[in-house]
Amino acid sequence: MENNKIDTIGYHYVVEVTGADSNILSDANLIRDIFLDAAKKAKMDVRASYFFKFSSQGVSSMIIISERHISIHTWPENQYAALDVYTCGESDPEQAVYYIIEKLKAKFSHISEIKRGIFDDDNTYTHMFLSWDEKIKKD
Amino acid sequence: MENNKIDTIGYHYVVEVTGADSNILSDANLIRDIFLDAAKKAKMDVRASYFFKFSSQGVSSMIIISERHISIHTWPENQYAALDVYTCGESDPEQAVYYIIEKLKAKFSHISEIKRGIFDDDNTYTHMFLSWDEKIKKD
Repeated sequence: MENNKIDTIGYHYVVEVTGADSNILSDANLIRDIFLDAAKKAKMDVRASYFFKFSSQGVSSMIIISERHISIHTWPENQYAALDVYTCGESDPEQAVYYIIEKLKAKFSHISEIKRGIFDDDNTYTHMFLSWDEKIKKD
Repeated sequence: MENNKIDTIGYHYVVEVTGADSNILSDANLIRDIFLDAAKKAKMDVRASYFFKFSSQGVSSMIIISERHISIHTWPENQYAALDVYTCGESDPEQAVYYIIEKLKAKFSHISEIKRGIFDDDNTYTHMFLSWDEKIKKD
């Protein structure tokens, strides 16, 4: 379809975080620190970030950079968070995912990896899923 | 596991946009306008937004609000974009998705709807996928 194509392949982790620490999930400053550390571990070069605390307890937060983002929406009352990590190019998104769920003290996470920007035989872009569960081992 | 649970169900649209207009995909201001209009159509109450233009041509942009976000990463050279629309509660995310892909003049879109924050029998949160393709009819 088009010429001089650039690599568009990205890895997007869609994570349902269960049994996390309610105090952490309601602390926007703490989540900012966790995100910035996670981005470093994933070799993401953060140039701007945006954090937003809404309503009673929940937090909606986001880091967005060129071809990459990390976002979270938290429900502290439910010890639940919806986490996304999307990256293209040279970086290690899985590192960021595991770092964040560990820092949120999650007991369990349901994770899907979506491989995005796959250029298909029929000249369209598509994506593919791979899902698994992670139990966080406690001593 | 926990008491007094709040509804955590969210709908997350993961979209691979094919054959879009390269000029639009490289115009951060235009994408901002499209996003703000899309958010209105989806009944999302936008209080803050963040837009970022990177590297040569591509744009990475995001609206984040309480329990909702819209994000995009574009590759104008490839006429490709990775679009995400995530919402909880009262809103109409599909409206936003279709508005955006129409405004980007996409020829084709591969879409997955992820139902997120499903509280499962085993007391963990999980998600489910539904995928389809959209061809944009041109006259």
